[in-house]
Amino acid sequence: MGRKRILTKEEILKETGVLLRKEGIHGVHFKKLSTELQVSRSTLYEYFKNKEDLILSYMRNMMEEMTQQIESIPETDPPNKKLYRLLFIFLDHAETHHIDQMIRELQSSDHTLALFYRTKIHEDLMGTYDQMLNWIDDAKNTGIWKKDIESEMVADLIFHSILFPTRHKFGVKEMTDQLFRMIEYGVKNE
Amino acid sequence: MGRKRILTKEEILKETGVLLRKEGIHGVHFKKLSTELQVSRSTLYEYFKNKEDLILSYMRNMMEEMTQQIESIPETDPPNKKLYRLLFIFLDHAETHHIDQMIRELQSSDHTLALFYRTKIHEDLMGTYDQMLNWIDDAKNTGIWKKDIESEMVADLIFHSILFPTRHKFGVKEMTDQLFRMIEYGVKNE
Repeated sequence: MGRKRILTKEEILKETGVLLRKEGIHGVHFKKLSTELQVSRSTLYEYFKNKEDLILSYMRNMMEEMTQQIESIPETDPPNKKLYRLLFIFLDHAETHHIDQMIRELQSSDHTLALFYRTKIHEDLMGTYDQMLNWIDDAKNTGIWKKDIESEMVADLIFHSILFPTRHKFGVKEMTDQLFRMIEYGVKNE
Repeated sequence: MGRKRILTKEEILKETGVLLRKEGIHGVHFKKLSTELQVSRSTLYEYFKNKEDLILSYMRNMMEEMTQQIESIPETDPPNKKLYRLLFIFLDHAETHHIDQMIRELQSSDHTLALFYRTKIHEDLMGTYDQMLNWIDDAKNTGIWKKDIESEMVADLIFHSILFPTRHKFGVKEMTDQLFRMIEYGVKNE
């Protein structure tokens, strides 16, 4: 449709993300994508063989971006600063958390591919969880954080914060700030 | 199977809960139940027409118990004490949160019934959420809690804590104590 132009895989994945966030998995169609991106549908098929391939690539791509951003957190930062940054990156890539549900909703024509992506993404998420636990332990061992709260409790909180509906209301930055302030200082007046 | 005895609906629901927690929804069978309760299977069918009826009744029953316990929290307690009690009751009835998934996993022979239970349970859960929000606002307005954290953020945290795997590791009482201490006082050393 419309003018012929050079399109990158990244542009397609970016627009897929826009549609996913706006309308969920059922809002992602090659037809709609081709209109939005002003290319023909056949151009899209050059990059992705079907909707499943497209969405799994999108999820994998986002997961890689997230892992890269977490890996580039400066080693020299104090552990609680690292955890703040991780929380922000995490909330900023909230869709990764819905991978299971999304893959289940797909008319899974290629189970092996879906399983591969799912396993890979789970491995990455578990890696992030372990990283978080290490930094929490560091914060405790350097005396920045108290030792009377189990590390897993804080890690579970950060991990599940991705599901809080408040994210949509306040945005990623505000939610990160508030949640981290609560974790560190609590809500009680002295 | 074994001796004939008088069985109450409550006993069946209690044993259903034991099986559900131990083996998940697929571990609940009338055969297994009749062995555990030492009654014939036909006795079970006098109370529940099928597995779906049994599990939905169980969920509804637990939800009612939870609502009753929350309603019996003393009105005269300070709002943060009320929230502590609510968190405990909530974590103690964690299965209610999995109602959606459970109902989806059921071979749903009776969609109307399932939908009814689901809607009812959702309504009750939303009522609990609103109750929580009110108490958080009370805690802020009476100066017990600070005002710089959005009430929805704390409510979301309490609501989602039911999903934390730490619950299985530390138990309901210990988790309630730790989580509430973190919410009120934070983890940072002064």
